Amino acid sequence: MRYAVLGTGIVGRTVAARLDSLGHRVVIGTRDPGATLGRAEYSDWQEVHPEVGLAGFAEAARDGEVLVNATGGQEADAAHLDGKILIDIANPLDFSRGFPPGLDPVDDDSLGELLQRTFPGLRVVKTLNTMNCQIMVDPARVAGEHHVFVSGEDADAKKAVRELLHSFGWPEASVIDLGGIETARGTEMLLPVWLRLMSALGHTDFNFHIQGA
Amino acid sequence: MRYAVLGTGIVGRTVAARLDSLGHRVVIGTRDPGATLGRAEYSDWQEVHPEVGLAGFAEAARDGEVLVNATGGQEADAAHLDGKILIDIANPLDFSRGFPPGLDPVDDDSLGELLQRTFPGLRVVKTLNTMNCQIMVDPARVAGEHHVFVSGEDADAKKAVRELLHSFGWPEASVIDLGGIETARGTEMLLPVWLRLMSALGHTDFNFHIQGA
Repeated sequence: MRYAVLGTGIVGRTVAARLDSLGHRVVIGTRDPGATLGRAEYSDWQEVHPEVGLAGFAEAARDGEVLVNATGGQEADAAHLDGKILIDIANPLDFSRGFPPGLDPVDDDSLGELLQRTFPGLRVVKTLNTMNCQIMVDPARVAGEHHVFVSGEDADAKKAVRELLHSFGWPEASVIDLGGIETARGTEMLLPVWLRLMSALGHTDFNFHIQGA
Repeated sequence: MRYAVLGTGIVGRTVAARLDSLGHRVVIGTRDPGATLGRAEYSDWQEVHPEVGLAGFAEAARDGEVLVNATGGQEADAAHLDGKILIDIANPLDFSRGFPPGLDPVDDDSLGELLQRTFPGLRVVKTLNTMNCQIMVDPARVAGEHHVFVSGEDADAKKAVRELLHSFGWPEASVIDLGGIETARGTEMLLPVWLRLMSALGHTDFNFHIQGA
């Protein structure tokens, strides 16, 4: 499968590396490929992952069969996207009041819904946004059972995302389908307590488990 | 210990009954005791729990050594409250857009912080607001390990609340102290995903467990 991972930060790079290790063809999308390659953080990573491509957002999205949003928002180009799956693994972090960040949108809207409204031809599936990116691609980092949530309108798209999650190491029973894309409000609003748990626990190797589910 | 439970809904009644069963003296606070007794839901419950008192908010709060907030907000009277512990187990539900409710305040404030600001002489501890009220007072309803969060500024107040939680059946290891009252933002923002989990699972006998904590 050809994946376009939109976003060059630690989340995008971690997911791109995992997809690459599973044999997929991966292109990372960024606003300005030249500027991205000029950053040591990226170019050092690129040297270790020479087979992962880099392109502008529009080109990466056009080329990918499945898109993964690992940016805070609305960078994607709407051209040539109809019918594709957009896996939204991001949270709409709002640093305008400093750290810890809040969310924007929040409560009566979500990034997942915003993306689905902005690109009605895409089939948006929200998932993996409730944990550290190392756990996204390697759930066995956290011992014991824990959950990953899925939100989206399209049953076939959610089925395809489930299969991707299984290939990342998520057992069938660890996936909770919350329903439509509106339920992304709930999972995005886990971010504030996640940040405070990180502070209280002093690490990020934890995840939500819904006991009794 | 003398408890004042502010709020006559299912959450307040459930916690009041549990405190009563543990041998505490309990008075429920309400805006208008006559109107409350006129509602069959309350008077039927009162018949089964004749030893639980009912009084106006101010009188109940004045009489209680420890206060429990089980209302959406700002009903309490500030008189004679200095130094008391206020255990805030509520969420600031906002039904202005229908069901499922949103939260108000949200993201950059919380009910826990609002109560602490409004009554600086009280020692507010936010806890138990992340689960169904039956589980609050009987955590063994959910098999396996699961967590209850504590937020607040005063270490002694949090210690007293931990002891109350233990008496409800919460083991020491199940209590996660998130830090100051600001962390109530995080736990209140669990409500939206809780509501969507209730819909997806079809029941309320579940709770959050932080795997890896």
